[in-house]
Amino acid sequence: MNDTASDEEERITLTHGTGGQATRDLVSETLTAGFEDAGDALVGLADFDDGAVLPVGDKKLVVTTDTHVVQPPFFPGGDIGRLAVSGTVNDLAVMGATEVRGLTSGVVVEANYPREKLERIADSMAEACREADAPVVSGDTKVMGNGELDGITINTAGVGVAEHVTPDSDLSPQDVIIVTDTIGEHGIALLAEREGIDFEADLESDVQPVNDLLAAVLEVGGEAVTAMKDPTRTGLAGALNEMARKSEVGIEVTDERVPVTGDVTGAGELLGLDPYQIANEGVAILGVEPTAAEPVLAALRDHPKGENAAAIGKAIDDHHGRVVLDTGIGNRYMREPSKEAVPRIC
Amino acid sequence: MNDTASDEEERITLTHGTGGQATRDLVSETLTAGFEDAGDALVGLADFDDGAVLPVGDKKLVVTTDTHVVQPPFFPGGDIGRLAVSGTVNDLAVMGATEVRGLTSGVVVEANYPREKLERIADSMAEACREADAPVVSGDTKVMGNGELDGITINTAGVGVAEHVTPDSDLSPQDVIIVTDTIGEHGIALLAEREGIDFEADLESDVQPVNDLLAAVLEVGGEAVTAMKDPTRTGLAGALNEMARKSEVGIEVTDERVPVTGDVTGAGELLGLDPYQIANEGVAILGVEPTAAEPVLAALRDHPKGENAAAIGKAIDDHHGRVVLDTGIGNRYMREPSKEAVPRIC
Repeated sequence: MNDTASDEEERITLTHGTGGQATRDLVSETLTAGFEDAGDALVGLADFDDGAVLPVGDKKLVVTTDTHVVQPPFFPGGDIGRLAVSGTVNDLAVMGATEVRGLTSGVVVEANYPREKLERIADSMAEACREADAPVVSGDTKVMGNGELDGITINTAGVGVAEHVTPDSDLSPQDVIIVTDTIGEHGIALLAEREGIDFEADLESDVQPVNDLLAAVLEVGGEAVTAMKDPTRTGLAGALNEMARKSEVGIEVTDERVPVTGDVTGAGELLGLDPYQIANEGVAILGVEPTAAEPVLAALRDHPKGENAAAIGKAIDDHHGRVVLDTGIGNRYMREPSKEAVPRIC
Repeated sequence: MNDTASDEEERITLTHGTGGQATRDLVSETLTAGFEDAGDALVGLADFDDGAVLPVGDKKLVVTTDTHVVQPPFFPGGDIGRLAVSGTVNDLAVMGATEVRGLTSGVVVEANYPREKLERIADSMAEACREADAPVVSGDTKVMGNGELDGITINTAGVGVAEHVTPDSDLSPQDVIIVTDTIGEHGIALLAEREGIDFEADLESDVQPVNDLLAAVLEVGGEAVTAMKDPTRTGLAGALNEMARKSEVGIEVTDERVPVTGDVTGAGELLGLDPYQIANEGVAILGVEPTAAEPVLAALRDHPKGENAAAIGKAIDDHHGRVVLDTGIGNRYMREPSKEAVPRIC
């Protein structure tokens, strides 16, 4: 039976890349083990937040990274270039660093890739940078052989400065939970495109930088904005569960208050996908002290990217680490995406 | 003849990834066009230096990125993990930021990759981080499908603080050119391994972080250290040509003074490779004002990573943008690697 040994060798699976529990386990066991030295980071690798926080002089520097492997690289509403810039700008912004000091861009492309596509992607990155007022300051370009990479990947890292840091772990009971926009567009539009399904509906990813929107939030809310998070790979459900777990609170969400378009709900049903469990990239989740909730909502709705903002629930001192969904006919826990979560969605 | 149109579509080639003129042209025409806004960067994307420099409060922050696609990922003397950390630490260090504030790590791995290999790579990254006193503060892990990526790629971006910035463009005539170690080990060892050639000689990559070595240099040399550069993908020849071109000086190099081991020279001859044109990752090139050359050399030779340091030539006010090699029997220009330069060497 010795010849089965190599078959039993543990291998990486697609589930390890979905950003949920399997990713956390893998990363905890391999890619953070041995990296206990966080230097003088105030928020570091072991915190699994959207970015790290480092003191530099009297400033708080936020640093983050994401490699974008989205498939297909061109999709309704955007492409990998717009996604790469938005993803990193938004990771900085939800940590409180709405002013981006610099992005880096690490492009890896397959030999034989059409130059015209690379140019379109670069144009799209540049446009998103202008939108976010975020300069690319350093870059790297590598080419892998034809057949060694499926198209193109783009890593974007970024640095920004935060006056008030907004981690995903600082919710207190009674804090109001706000989402800044409708949920699920990016994931549903991408998967519909990937599956080649042509819905009657006009499904488009809402991929966009929201640092300007979150700057408006922080200007009004200030320190009363206790937590912010980017509901990317694991969707609204994954992000809320993570906030509840890290903040050691429960979160109560009223289903009918969560803004989801009819098109997304309909397409989700046809694709067998829960809009709460699918990736976003142009939406943020906020935790806001009760007294600041109304002014923050007003500021959001005054902004073109925040018209659909809604208070969807609140943090509670019960059901710690869980998200309770009031469906109108009863309560159930809102679960994180399970192992079937989709790869290469961002 | 219409059916040839798609054949004539311009495509990315491996030459675009070698870090030389073809890479510069591609990047200038696509990945920096439209990115003219450098924010308040003192050194930015358009400078094509080892990193960017941003003012943050009263500090100078250096930011850099590299995606590592080395093939094979395990090679004599190191692996992709050690390479990724060393590459980024050294890019920061040659800009003057020998104190690393934080690294980010963006790992992309193919589904079905053996977990044991990923763990070895992570261990190796952690070891290099300890060696460089460089904490990984933020990370991202993605999985691509089996067959969608040839193994593993690792992007490392980094931030550090520089007291005195040492760009690759500030050489003045008479500045002494110093290399901190023997040249060519990494590239020759990697290619010998890739080609499956088993030399009698003990060829090993010298991949290592040299920020500690360069801190010793700056402590002794201070502002008299006018320029530093990491001779990576395009080797010593590529780096010197770039320094000459950007500094608008010529550089004169005496062939016999360049430290190269006999093993590297011999293996290079058998492989048909010029050690001056092959990648390094554990060596730096310095430009030092004449009065500081001796103390800097003494400091280097006092350090275990600098025992083989040598003054190999000087900047001159002639042959602007070119490197003149005194071969002992006459002078010739030292050329940058041409189109045949090898892919996936770092």
